[in-house]
Amino acid sequence: MKERFEIVEKTLAAMLEEKKYASLRDILVTMNPADIAGIFSGLESQKIPLLFRLLPKELAAESFVEMEPEEQELLIRSFSDNELKEIVDELYVDDAAALVEEMPANVVKRILRQADPEMRKSINQILRYPENSAGSIMTTEYVSLRPAMTVGEAILRIRRQGVDKETIYTCYVTVDRKLVGLVTVKDLLLAEDDETRIEELMLTNLISVTTHTDQEEVGRMFSKYDFLALPVVDGENRMVGIVTFDDAMDVIEEEATEDIEMMGGMLPSEKTYLKSSVWELFKNRIPWLMLLMVSATFTGMIITGFEDALAAQVALTAFIPMLMGTGGNSGSQSSVTIIRSLSLGELRFSDLPKVLWKEIRTAAICGLVLAVVCFVKIWLVDRMLLGNYEISLMVDVVVCVALLVTVLLAKIVGAVLPLAAKALKLDPAVMASPFITSIVDAVSLLVYFMVAKLLLRI
Amino acid sequence: MKERFEIVEKTLAAMLEEKKYASLRDILVTMNPADIAGIFSGLESQKIPLLFRLLPKELAAESFVEMEPEEQELLIRSFSDNELKEIVDELYVDDAAALVEEMPANVVKRILRQADPEMRKSINQILRYPENSAGSIMTTEYVSLRPAMTVGEAILRIRRQGVDKETIYTCYVTVDRKLVGLVTVKDLLLAEDDETRIEELMLTNLISVTTHTDQEEVGRMFSKYDFLALPVVDGENRMVGIVTFDDAMDVIEEEATEDIEMMGGMLPSEKTYLKSSVWELFKNRIPWLMLLMVSATFTGMIITGFEDALAAQVALTAFIPMLMGTGGNSGSQSSVTIIRSLSLGELRFSDLPKVLWKEIRTAAICGLVLAVVCFVKIWLVDRMLLGNYEISLMVDVVVCVALLVTVLLAKIVGAVLPLAAKALKLDPAVMASPFITSIVDAVSLLVYFMVAKLLLRI
Repeated sequence: MKERFEIVEKTLAAMLEEKKYASLRDILVTMNPADIAGIFSGLESQKIPLLFRLLPKELAAESFVEMEPEEQELLIRSFSDNELKEIVDELYVDDAAALVEEMPANVVKRILRQADPEMRKSINQILRYPENSAGSIMTTEYVSLRPAMTVGEAILRIRRQGVDKETIYTCYVTVDRKLVGLVTVKDLLLAEDDETRIEELMLTNLISVTTHTDQEEVGRMFSKYDFLALPVVDGENRMVGIVTFDDAMDVIEEEATEDIEMMGGMLPSEKTYLKSSVWELFKNRIPWLMLLMVSATFTGMIITGFEDALAAQVALTAFIPMLMGTGGNSGSQSSVTIIRSLSLGELRFSDLPKVLWKEIRTAAICGLVLAVVCFVKIWLVDRMLLGNYEISLMVDVVVCVALLVTVLLAKIVGAVLPLAAKALKLDPAVMASPFITSIVDAVSLLVYFMVAKLLLRI
Repeated sequence: MKERFEIVEKTLAAMLEEKKYASLRDILVTMNPADIAGIFSGLESQKIPLLFRLLPKELAAESFVEMEPEEQELLIRSFSDNELKEIVDELYVDDAAALVEEMPANVVKRILRQADPEMRKSINQILRYPENSAGSIMTTEYVSLRPAMTVGEAILRIRRQGVDKETIYTCYVTVDRKLVGLVTVKDLLLAEDDETRIEELMLTNLISVTTHTDQEEVGRMFSKYDFLALPVVDGENRMVGIVTFDDAMDVIEEEATEDIEMMGGMLPSEKTYLKSSVWELFKNRIPWLMLLMVSATFTGMIITGFEDALAAQVALTAFIPMLMGTGGNSGSQSSVTIIRSLSLGELRFSDLPKVLWKEIRTAAICGLVLAVVCFVKIWLVDRMLLGNYEISLMVDVVVCVALLVTVLLAKIVGAVLPLAAKALKLDPAVMASPFITSIVDAVSLLVYFMVAKLLLRI
């Protein structure tokens, strides 16, 4: 994707160097706002305002919305008050609210001063909702109709008001600001008769969210119901805005990224990788590393406690990494699967018995197959091929029995902990691989040494 | 999400038991197709056909599309030929193609026999494209307009043809089947004059994909450009279909799930967790477990090779799990971040120097902070508090130096391997945590023992 623009970026930079502004403008107007924003982020920062001023008003605003906060701030600081007003007038309310949220206080003041009173009110309303709530990602610009309108009147209203609305394709029918139904433009266009009343046409089994619904839930509803837009209502079922599918798509992607980061033992990041400073990366990564490093004190204690056993059978030490590694992998397979299923809304806590039974059987088969292969491998490779004759038949048995038990326990821990987190209203993704691995490391060592003591009588 | 339906499920099951069909129907018609499908999947299988027959025709077809393949097959087997034809007639072509792909051969034959010739042709066309290509997820039903049409004529055409189209909101302008532009219904409705020609109104800087474009790329384009639909063209720029946003949303979710599964050391699954059999879970999980178990032979060899050193300084063994664990976590943090950025199209291989420099600096800070804390912790906790006086000052130094070097190497390996995979046209997600951990395990042991030999002269 990015590759395609490398050449365009270079061409534009060269043309800018040679001050070929008219041709530059001709190229830019053929491009999509998202692509223009992508190209701007690859330019040296002092060139951005110059190139931006070449864009026609509407395209300029659309491209502005797609840019990263750094470039937006840079541009706003270079704008005159009039230029800023032109951009702000073109913005949809949800984009304006998102912008205000990202900018430093002095820039925010300038933006709000240029917004007309109506928009200022809407921005402030959206910003009052909790972060990651439906209210915070909605737009207040939608088409509302009355039940008594005819199809013809409705179409006329859309034609008059539609310009400023983020979507016109789903229209909401309200009475005293309460949401009572919806009609799509498809319904209106395909209606047989222009005199049909909206109340006869409208869908009334509505699905809506409240302003405080978590955006993750909003994303799930979009992917389940394939909506173009979802109405947002307040506590009294009064319509306050809509979330559109493009914002829902961003949410779905964001939430997946957040889960992936947590599964990788990091705090969720605010910025893309290349935009993150070393300091920000460090801050997101160090907490889990530190916690897990310190918690490894337990594995150290277990090994120290069994020092005599290890001294008696030196061959045992060589298999510690294999046991811990296989245990960790088994556990993270289960936890990752369960966490994703929870995120997609496919599992609930009451599924615990079903999940446990499935995991125990899967673990038994995985464990048995691994143990058998491991047994043969140790004998043929480690003992015969590599000539490590310290490995007796009983040591081989101990390793494989410990392996089987470890896989079983690891998969149970990996399945139960995310579900438990869900039941405790924590984010299940916290219980991901690094955390599970630390627990399984300790468990696998304990199992190993206990089996060894039992079977080798040391 | 699922919780909300538990009560409804129970109520419906009870009403079905008491044969209250009229009331059941009254309840079902108020519900959304996706919810109906969800409720069906919770019912005993012999009750599903009974309940399904209560649904009005259109709602029945819409709910059918939302169901899992198991329930779909069950229903089709219970349908008469006439019932099957009614459902197939209501399906959009892309849904019909997806259905045909999922069903066993004898069911497919029945479906195709009931489809009208036009649809049969389109289904076959879609099925010919490679799996996961744009062609395989597109629909062939879209509204096409001619450049010379007026706005009024275009609206009339939409009103006549729109019923069977998956979306009418984006219309494509073609000449000799070649794609030359697009207009949205919004443009048409907001046009000042009904006599305006489409060619004056249409957008010509088009973004399209070919039938063979990977669906992951299609998903990325949707989330970048916020399209409602994306045109699919063949090698000669002839329009063959469209991908709609709802299918793109499914792709985005599917691809994230696939990445997450690969990061967890599994093969991508075809079904949801609860629908997967133990055997399928086993097949997806055992390959990586087996590979990583066998590759742990190397860590075993390294430990065996340094047996004498470990015997001379027994305290060293206790820190092996901590070193390997912290190395593994450091490496997987980097690999997970890079893999996700590659998936979202935020990184390209040419960013390697930038990435390396960022990772090295982050690793240096993380490593230093960890080493200092680890040094103090070992001295205060492991030696003083837990009384392990085998830990000398030099052992403490060895552990912390090894820790610093391990974190540094782990982050470099974790960052480079996914980028290298990308350059080699492999899926970067293969290079995720379990794989990196195995490499880092061996690296950290080597570093540890080499530092120990050097500093402790053993």
